[in-house]
Amino acid sequence: MNPTHIEHLGIAVTSLEEAMPFFEFLTGQKCYSIEEVADQKVKTAFFKVGEVKIELLEATSPESSIAKFIEKNGGRGGVHHVAFNVESVEEALKEAEAAGIQLIDKCPRPGAEHLMIAFLHPKSTKGILTELCEQPK
Amino acid sequence: MNPTHIEHLGIAVTSLEEAMPFFEFLTGQKCYSIEEVADQKVKTAFFKVGEVKIELLEATSPESSIAKFIEKNGGRGGVHHVAFNVESVEEALKEAEAAGIQLIDKCPRPGAEHLMIAFLHPKSTKGILTELCEQPK
Repeated sequence: MNPTHIEHLGIAVTSLEEAMPFFEFLTGQKCYSIEEVADQKVKTAFFKVGEVKIELLEATSPESSIAKFIEKNGGRGGVHHVAFNVESVEEALKEAEAAGIQLIDKCPRPGAEHLMIAFLHPKSTKGILTELCEQPK
Repeated sequence: MNPTHIEHLGIAVTSLEEAMPFFEFLTGQKCYSIEEVADQKVKTAFFKVGEVKIELLEATSPESSIAKFIEKNGGRGGVHHVAFNVESVEEALKEAEAAGIQLIDKCPRPGAEHLMIAFLHPKSTKGILTELCEQPK
C-alpha cells in the first residue's frame, strides 16, 4: 500500500484528564488539540512525537468501541489502533480488498483532524486494528 | 522525557514467516533485517514506514514474553510495545524514576539493531509497554 508514514497511534484511555499528565511527561509536550468525534463517540487529545501523532481516546458513551476495548482489556487502556498515512484511502481500500483483507469501512469517511479515514479489520491484519488516513487536499 | 521520535513499534506475531507477506503488503516494502535476540528469546524482522520501524517479534521459547503476550491475547498477535528514541536512556530512566514510574530495567541494556534499551512498566504507563532506545554513538 506504500504508506508515507505512521500518521498516529490511537491509545484508549479511561480518562483524558487522568492520562494527559503522563503523556505530557512522556512526550515532553503539552497536548495541542482536544476534539470530540461524535460519530465515533470519543473525545480525543493529541500529542506529537517526531512525525507521529499520539491520539488519546476517551469513550463518551458505553457503546463506543473504546469503551468496549477497555472492558475487554480488564478495565485498562492501551494501544487501540495504528494509523498509516496514504495518498488515497479510496485506492488503498481497493488494493486491500483485492488482497483479500476484510474491510471495516468500504468507503473513506471523515475522521478527527479533518482527515479522511477507513479501518481494516484486525482479523485480516495480524491482530492490529489498522486505520488508513488521507490528509485534506 | 522529550523523545526525538518513535523508534519502533514492537508487534508480536505467532510466526514471522506467516506474518511477513502481510507486512510487505502493508508497508509496500521487503523486510530489511532479520535478527535473533537470544537474550529476549525472540526472532525479529524489521520494516520501516517513514521514520518508524516496525519490529515483528516471534517467540523462540515458551518462556519468551512474546509467547506469554500471545497466550494472554487468545492466541493472537498485536501491538506489544512502543519504543521512543531518546538522547540518553540512562538520563530518561532517572527522570522516569523521579516521576514515580515503575521501571522494568533499572539500567540500559543491549537490544536489537545495536541500540541501548530499557523498558518501563505498563502499570505506570497507561497500559502501554514502553521502551526507551538510544542510538549507538
